[in-house]
Amino acid sequence: MTPYRPRILVTNDDGITAPGIRMLVSIARELGDVTVVAPDSPQSGKGHALTLTDPLRLTPSDVFDGVKAYECSGTPVDCVKLAKHVIAGEDSFDICLSGINHGSNASINILYSGTVSAAMEASLEGIDSLGFSLLDYAHDADFSQARDHIKSIIEKVLKDGLQDCKLLNINIPNLPKAEIKGVKVCRQAAGSWVEKFTEAIDPRGLPYYWLTGDFVHQEHADDTDLYALEHGYISVVPSGHDLTRYPALTSMKYIEL
Amino acid sequence: MTPYRPRILVTNDDGITAPGIRMLVSIARELGDVTVVAPDSPQSGKGHALTLTDPLRLTPSDVFDGVKAYECSGTPVDCVKLAKHVIAGEDSFDICLSGINHGSNASINILYSGTVSAAMEASLEGIDSLGFSLLDYAHDADFSQARDHIKSIIEKVLKDGLQDCKLLNINIPNLPKAEIKGVKVCRQAAGSWVEKFTEAIDPRGLPYYWLTGDFVHQEHADDTDLYALEHGYISVVPSGHDLTRYPALTSMKYIEL
Repeated sequence: MTPYRPRILVTNDDGITAPGIRMLVSIARELGDVTVVAPDSPQSGKGHALTLTDPLRLTPSDVFDGVKAYECSGTPVDCVKLAKHVIAGEDSFDICLSGINHGSNASINILYSGTVSAAMEASLEGIDSLGFSLLDYAHDADFSQARDHIKSIIEKVLKDGLQDCKLLNINIPNLPKAEIKGVKVCRQAAGSWVEKFTEAIDPRGLPYYWLTGDFVHQEHADDTDLYALEHGYISVVPSGHDLTRYPALTSMKYIEL
Repeated sequence: MTPYRPRILVTNDDGITAPGIRMLVSIARELGDVTVVAPDSPQSGKGHALTLTDPLRLTPSDVFDGVKAYECSGTPVDCVKLAKHVIAGEDSFDICLSGINHGSNASINILYSGTVSAAMEASLEGIDSLGFSLLDYAHDADFSQARDHIKSIIEKVLKDGLQDCKLLNINIPNLPKAEIKGVKVCRQAAGSWVEKFTEAIDPRGLPYYWLTGDFVHQEHADDTDLYALEHGYISVVPSGHDLTRYPALTSMKYIEL
């Protein structure tokens, strides 16, 4: 009897030709039957955006030799919705892998991240979902350093399943393989960006603004993802979609009066 | 001595000409000094998307007679960032009001909502922020039915401030004024969408997909926003940005081994 091969959905936000998704597909095909649905253009910072007012295109792609793949004109969340409802149909997927993103999805960056939003969308569909990011913004980032760790995490999740959550936000420090100390399960750190806008004049004489900024850590508690990453660990934050601030359910009662 | 007038930022995701923001501005100008920065086009479902790869335009608008207003080419989150860092500068705002959205931002719809994401972005900047939505999808929705309630909520928050949170996700049932029973502080209900894609062929002979779907309630517990709305109350969910699933910090420890 052929052993069961898990059905693996792979997506990302950097687009189907990005190096990070190539690495993820190369790992995933060793572990199961892979379907790729990824954006046809970079979608960084798209958060949980979906496309309501325009049609979506889904085009077969041969970017990954021997792997069923489609490029999609929409956002990362659109990719997951189309993968689930148009491509998989009744079959669905056992796991969704998103990334590997360039840069950090740690702390509050999870809110802006198309990578994690794609994984979260799959988790809302009941699929165990993992979002990966490497803390290296360079296009030629070396994704191989964490290959063994990533594969091991996916294998563990395929074996034991996610417990008390459906989504892991996984960030990998930008270190050589030998310097990665291990994996830490941790909470999302508080943090913020100090925003700046570059203001300039375009060739037609009109002003424009372009976003830039620096991430500012707000806390360094040793149970946070920022701490783990700063100390050479891969951070794994079990995540969900409940934004309720429970302590405020009592203190904000005054608004009912 | 002139009494202090709070500095109020108003934004939305339906665009600067939408009826909902007009109502919110008309309330806000009775309570303080208003600045409007809103998208120049509809941005429903844009979630926490921001614009990284394109320049942003910010154009003064005279849509609101006597109120300082700008239309922005970006997403709701972009509007808030520009309002804070380009328009307000050192002054910042005392409160941010976003909406009034058409439709529901209750339950998991908070994730997709540009309205709440704009308010959340302001809350990340330390500003008390309120996102409003009326459960009526019609463009000619009657926003007047909840005017008194909305004004009262804003007045209370201006007086006492948000406690244990920086963000309220406020949804208003689609009922005549006399049938709205009051305001309930509650938690975000679990819920999900049953997605469908309309598949069709465009005039050039190419296939496309268009998202549609039905919201499916998953729980009806009496402490949730869905329950409050179904029973004629305005739902107020104190919200934050921490997505950590705390119970899983223990149960997922196996991933470290």
